[in-house]
Amino acid sequence: MNQPMIGRRNLLRLGLAAGAAATAAGSARAEELAVPEWSTGLGKPVLSPAYGQPSPFEKNVVRRTWTKGPLEQASSMTPLADLHGIITPNGLHFERHHSGVPTIDPDRHRLVVHGLVRRNLSFTMNDLLRFPSESRIHFLECSGNGNSEWAKPVRDSVQGTHGLISCCEWTGVPLATLLDEAGLLPEAKWVLAEGADSVKMSRSLPLNTLLDDALVVYAQNGEALRPEQGYPVRLLLPGIEGNMSIKWLRRLKLAAEPFYSREETSKYTDLLPSGKARIFSFEMDVKSVITRPSVGQKLTETGIREIVGLAWSGRGRIRAVEVSADGGKSWLPARLQGPILPKCLTRFTLPWDWQGQAAVLQSRATDDSGFVQPSRDQLVAARGVNSYYHYNAIQSWKVASSGEVTNVHV
Amino acid sequence: MNQPMIGRRNLLRLGLAAGAAATAAGSARAEELAVPEWSTGLGKPVLSPAYGQPSPFEKNVVRRTWTKGPLEQASSMTPLADLHGIITPNGLHFERHHSGVPTIDPDRHRLVVHGLVRRNLSFTMNDLLRFPSESRIHFLECSGNGNSEWAKPVRDSVQGTHGLISCCEWTGVPLATLLDEAGLLPEAKWVLAEGADSVKMSRSLPLNTLLDDALVVYAQNGEALRPEQGYPVRLLLPGIEGNMSIKWLRRLKLAAEPFYSREETSKYTDLLPSGKARIFSFEMDVKSVITRPSVGQKLTETGIREIVGLAWSGRGRIRAVEVSADGGKSWLPARLQGPILPKCLTRFTLPWDWQGQAAVLQSRATDDSGFVQPSRDQLVAARGVNSYYHYNAIQSWKVASSGEVTNVHV
Repeated sequence: MNQPMIGRRNLLRLGLAAGAAATAAGSARAEELAVPEWSTGLGKPVLSPAYGQPSPFEKNVVRRTWTKGPLEQASSMTPLADLHGIITPNGLHFERHHSGVPTIDPDRHRLVVHGLVRRNLSFTMNDLLRFPSESRIHFLECSGNGNSEWAKPVRDSVQGTHGLISCCEWTGVPLATLLDEAGLLPEAKWVLAEGADSVKMSRSLPLNTLLDDALVVYAQNGEALRPEQGYPVRLLLPGIEGNMSIKWLRRLKLAAEPFYSREETSKYTDLLPSGKARIFSFEMDVKSVITRPSVGQKLTETGIREIVGLAWSGRGRIRAVEVSADGGKSWLPARLQGPILPKCLTRFTLPWDWQGQAAVLQSRATDDSGFVQPSRDQLVAARGVNSYYHYNAIQSWKVASSGEVTNVHV
Repeated sequence: MNQPMIGRRNLLRLGLAAGAAATAAGSARAEELAVPEWSTGLGKPVLSPAYGQPSPFEKNVVRRTWTKGPLEQASSMTPLADLHGIITPNGLHFERHHSGVPTIDPDRHRLVVHGLVRRNLSFTMNDLLRFPSESRIHFLECSGNGNSEWAKPVRDSVQGTHGLISCCEWTGVPLATLLDEAGLLPEAKWVLAEGADSVKMSRSLPLNTLLDDALVVYAQNGEALRPEQGYPVRLLLPGIEGNMSIKWLRRLKLAAEPFYSREETSKYTDLLPSGKARIFSFEMDVKSVITRPSVGQKLTETGIREIVGLAWSGRGRIRAVEVSADGGKSWLPARLQGPILPKCLTRFTLPWDWQGQAAVLQSRATDDSGFVQPSRDQLVAARGVNSYYHYNAIQSWKVASSGEVTNVHV
């Protein structure tokens, strides 16, 4: 290994102490023990506001869009480089809308179950709250996440390359419970889920093991769903491409066949080199990305620092993440932060001693189903370059000796 | 058991289906499949706003205060009855300030370590971000949580009785790492932590096993700390009374003895019947509360519904929660939602068939250190009624045959 990565156990002995001392004062200077102006008078009272907001110094940590068209048919992306841990705060959850965010009165909203069922049902929000509930932490990823990387490495932030993923604690009722209430007829094999947005986003879901852990959710990170994530109720299909977790859910229609809606034929399919298209691909494949350091950042101090990033798989838990600083020639295992949950973001970390050398940082995740994140070459060999969705290749960040970090394909 | 609680396994068979059918239409009525007005045109575009906010229909789900005095020396409480799962969204985390919330420029803030150390250190926020990080989900509870219940059951919401607790994913540097950097002298046994609020909130922490899992944190639920939770950096002492997790942390001073600061002598102590006071009580004892149904709510429909609540312990994991509907005469085990993490909220649920009968709902938690939440009589027998802090007795909610839920001491 020609890059000095450091096992965590040996970190302090190996020199982080020296690194910190170099950046610290060595002794607490008088002005640092002096009283700053913000400590000299009363601060803001409680309830200012009653629903809290971030510090004004964090005003640049917001969702951003790269969409050129109308913002009602657009996505906004999560600022991954500025985030920590695995929970995405609700205000920064990525968005993807096809006809904007409807403003729905929860008291008047209904969820209807019909089609090949023993009896049609219509649920109010209060009905749903009375059912046995589940809370689980799962990522949600747009299948278009990373699609800019199919062509050239043009995006200049990890928010732009990978920000169509977020991770929340979701609470709701198992989909299976509601389908049991209605009583499936033997010929029911698929269910159409339809949203209350004006485009009536709809997708067909096969009634097989894919839906075992599906939830009809009304809460994210403890509170009611945000409008842009489907208020008052949405589907949440853990590990499945985000588009199928229908927001503003108004209808579940049971049927014998898929419906081949616009968004599962014209869109959300991948054109292969053979001319055929992958459809109904469902699970999001194993993937990871280094969020610090990442493209657009600049290292300004030499010494030991943490490399941190995120890994996830739609097929289960993350088993391992390896990190390379030499463009994939050699790898070291990263530390995984717990709890390591299925179909959930996993945070990985590894200390790295940067002394001004050029480097290419990469991460490679393996999930507990055995899938290993492919290199870009492997992915292109299998899928060609006509795909728009489902890009999960290893990402490369080039660190120049100036400290500048850029996005490269190697 | 004279109240019809229902094991989850038998729930559907026993009649939730009938309950749901009673409240559902039985068949999807034409008007419920009709297109509501919010589905007839474009909704709001992405980035409206770039940092997202709750639905306007949730405007009453906010922090509230019961403080009569100045709001800079006050608390605001988390609306537990409206929340789900275990994560508290950052905008609803409870507050407790002693001189208001300072507005701190993170680039100018310093954390100084001094006193009985080999070398004084001063850390910038960038310094802290370079250290190996930890992310963990922990509750934070003001030791005054529940203090209104020492006297009479006057508070009319679970937000008012128990809302001084919240639970987030916290990210930061182990306190031990920073103390190792400075190098403890052999005579160092305590550390004073001091905040940058103008009252300079300070508490003495013993350098023993209590601090094994302590963190110096800069993030909550993925993003930077909120100003009212200590932006840009605070202590986070898992399981310990909230007041000791010093916010706006500016100084750690190592010493041989505790400092006996105002907030650990005049305040945050409990006067016992003997006339002596408990001080340095540290761990928050095992506790639980039913959040739905809870005081101030009214049951309007008979049938099966979920009883849901929260349990926690400063000493470890929740092992079990039992629920009673007859004021403690009989108990049934509740289901615990995973992941069950140490020093973290645990959500419990149990279905209950309410047919208009009067009931007294209670929950009783046991932690994995063997502590069992006491009845009110047991707590008062041990501590008297002159305490202000550390109330952890079983809470009773009386359900009248009208469906009204009130706060009672039984």
